[in-house]
Amino acid sequence: MSADWFRRRFLPRGPLPAQRPPRPRASPVPYRRPRFLRGSGSSSGTADASRRPDARPVRSPVRGRSLPWNAGYAEIINAEKSEFNEDQAACGKLCIRRCEFGVEEDQEWLTLCSEEFLTGHYWALFDGHGGPAAAILAANTLHSCLRRQLEAVVEGMVATQPPMHLSGRCVCPSDPQFVEEKGIRTEDLVIGALESAFQECDEVIGRELEASGQVGGCTALVAVSLKGKLYVANAGDSRAILVRRDEVRPLSSEFTPETERQRIQQLAFIYPELLAGEFTRLEFPRRLKGDDLGQKVLFRDHHMSGWSYKCVEKSDLKYPLIHGQGRQARLLGTLAVSRGLGDHQLRVLDTNIQLKPFLLSVPQVTVLDMDQLEPQEEDVVVMATDGLWDVLSNEQVARLVQSFLLGNREDPHRYCSCWGSAWTWVSTSSNIKKYREDITAEESG
Amino acid sequence: MSADWFRRRFLPRGPLPAQRPPRPRASPVPYRRPRFLRGSGSSSGTADASRRPDARPVRSPVRGRSLPWNAGYAEIINAEKSEFNEDQAACGKLCIRRCEFGVEEDQEWLTLCSEEFLTGHYWALFDGHGGPAAAILAANTLHSCLRRQLEAVVEGMVATQPPMHLSGRCVCPSDPQFVEEKGIRTEDLVIGALESAFQECDEVIGRELEASGQVGGCTALVAVSLKGKLYVANAGDSRAILVRRDEVRPLSSEFTPETERQRIQQLAFIYPELLAGEFTRLEFPRRLKGDDLGQKVLFRDHHMSGWSYKCVEKSDLKYPLIHGQGRQARLLGTLAVSRGLGDHQLRVLDTNIQLKPFLLSVPQVTVLDMDQLEPQEEDVVVMATDGLWDVLSNEQVARLVQSFLLGNREDPHRYCSCWGSAWTWVSTSSNIKKYREDITAEESG
Repeated sequence: MSADWFRRRFLPRGPLPAQRPPRPRASPVPYRRPRFLRGSGSSSGTADASRRPDARPVRSPVRGRSLPWNAGYAEIINAEKSEFNEDQAACGKLCIRRCEFGVEEDQEWLTLCSEEFLTGHYWALFDGHGGPAAAILAANTLHSCLRRQLEAVVEGMVATQPPMHLSGRCVCPSDPQFVEEKGIRTEDLVIGALESAFQECDEVIGRELEASGQVGGCTALVAVSLKGKLYVANAGDSRAILVRRDEVRPLSSEFTPETERQRIQQLAFIYPELLAGEFTRLEFPRRLKGDDLGQKVLFRDHHMSGWSYKCVEKSDLKYPLIHGQGRQARLLGTLAVSRGLGDHQLRVLDTNIQLKPFLLSVPQVTVLDMDQLEPQEEDVVVMATDGLWDVLSNEQVARLVQSFLLGNREDPHRYCSCWGSAWTWVSTSSNIKKYREDITAEESG
Repeated sequence: MSADWFRRRFLPRGPLPAQRPPRPRASPVPYRRPRFLRGSGSSSGTADASRRPDARPVRSPVRGRSLPWNAGYAEIINAEKSEFNEDQAACGKLCIRRCEFGVEEDQEWLTLCSEEFLTGHYWALFDGHGGPAAAILAANTLHSCLRRQLEAVVEGMVATQPPMHLSGRCVCPSDPQFVEEKGIRTEDLVIGALESAFQECDEVIGRELEASGQVGGCTALVAVSLKGKLYVANAGDSRAILVRRDEVRPLSSEFTPETERQRIQQLAFIYPELLAGEFTRLEFPRRLKGDDLGQKVLFRDHHMSGWSYKCVEKSDLKYPLIHGQGRQARLLGTLAVSRGLGDHQLRVLDTNIQLKPFLLSVPQVTVLDMDQLEPQEEDVVVMATDGLWDVLSNEQVARLVQSFLLGNREDPHRYCSCWGSAWTWVSTSSNIKKYREDITAEESG
């Protein structure tokens, strides 16, 4: 994406074109639930929850079906807001081919030759909005984008330190020293691949939705285990935490119109055309009205962390670019998240004002070094969409998880059952300890 | 500053105008050392340092002259890089008038009426480059800008919670609730005032330097004590830390082309004209050359935290927007910092390419709650320019300060002597404990 592209895409010079309805050419994305839920029915959650009249059905993988690292999963249709569950999930093994082979080589033999592959695991949650299509496409696509991006740099990843040239050729004798001085590690290539994969997936979703005449967007929270590290990539307001006996560690942070206020205001400052004269870039404690005219009121602009007072002018009475706070905060009065996939067609109701220029598809990636962590049996990663975190704090979730798992040590299904109460939305927990067994099995296999 | 202003100022549509030399109309800013050094001579530092043949002269306030909170100060002319010491410092009492009085009121009586003033203290370090003028102007001006900005919002600051309307008038009954929900505290007004003061000071410096035909820029590190809190505002690569018995806490972070890479690359992505076809926005481990053409090399763009590989094209061989690492990192091959004051005329050597659009004058502000801190006798804030931090870590500085102060408990000049060795450049330490005495004296006075 270039700056010229941005201008052509979002800043038409003439009058705004009428919002054209998408022209369907391809068949719509079929609705589905996560693949690993096949064959599972609905339960009413834990015994405790099922006694409550408002208990909503909980779905989790059938007993006996194991997900990577003993991960559990449970989902609940959101509080009857929508007919479909707009959330999606995906998980599986990630196989990254180490070499590019010529077409003449025996592909079948190569797929049997395991040492030519780098393997990892992948878990993902997608919280959809404006329809389930974007989340379904993301669940179908993102892991393939990630595999492709990782394969493009895999030769750099398997080295102790990424080489300056992917070919390994040393053009300048001190190239390794330059890489060393920049502090570039193999994990930076995985971070770069995750960043690129999210963007690639966003483009795929944009094309597919336009082709099928569908709309919508989704957040994306992804965990990837690879070469002794756990990568957590987040674009949106889902959250992952690591729960240990004496520690609750956040593995992601949320991207909402509130947390990204300065970035969003800055863009509106640079390209005021994006607001089409309908919104004000400035933040006020509440929407201003006629009575406020001429008064000095609290405000913030893009360059400010603190607050100041300004004399209210007529243009300040417009609807604010970011309005409301907490769960109610909305970008352009429309969207509660500031990063994610899709939303290419999303416009402010009854206008041509686009949301997409303000949204980022690039995730923030955090890295957990599993070898340094010395994982214990009871260590758990909890990934969940905002439905969980809106009602429970990290510490509350940690206490619930710990006490449930402690009382159900022998149940192999415990990582799914743990979530079977009415307060979950969609969540996945991974048993970190399993990582050690995987690594050991691979090393000896 | 509006987007239109930015475009008019930095993005000329026609061919670039020849770089016009500044037209001197006013007399040049006279060179001086900090006011509180008046009457002080130079020493060769501590006994230990003075034995060393390379010991450089150290200047600190004369014995018996006390700075607010027993603060110490010592400076050393930098390693003969320049004829003048380009660094400056300022400190003093901050008196903020609480009300705007009509002209008919008795000004003399009002200045005697101490409860109409809010008082605080102010310490500042300015690390100059390209000549001492900007740092001198900053030392002469910034505290006045801050006082003015604080006076503009003081009625909001003295309330328990800033009112929605500065007048205190409640236009909407739930206004206090809106302010509460946004979490706006009185300290946010001080943060906002510091942010505005830095920008105002930057504009003053720009005008003054143009008028006097001088050039230059400086970083700014400011500490302000006000109403039980210590505010540290930083624009540049100076640093403040809090040293306690069991803790070393950073009170600022550095702004350099490296730490602000993504912001700077993003601006070049939005306005490629700023690079005039002479620089590449992308980051590589080293500057590329002809032999790299067609190879896949490590790179990063504005949206990337991680690294990836790209196939080298001819345009990638241009000089990088940000080049080098650590102390050697430079913006446009010219400047080692990415925030500060001044530099309005600074251009890349022999070109019309301006540095200023990439520089921010707005500081990052951190707040230390002195009441929550329960300050002890030995707690010290250390503020120093990069000369100190380039050679000593936070922990090394903390250990040196602690051991020196412990051995010189009875010497009232100890906060100055502490720095009298060859490794300091410019530094200030404040005795936090003194704060309690100040507050007590003010409350009983």
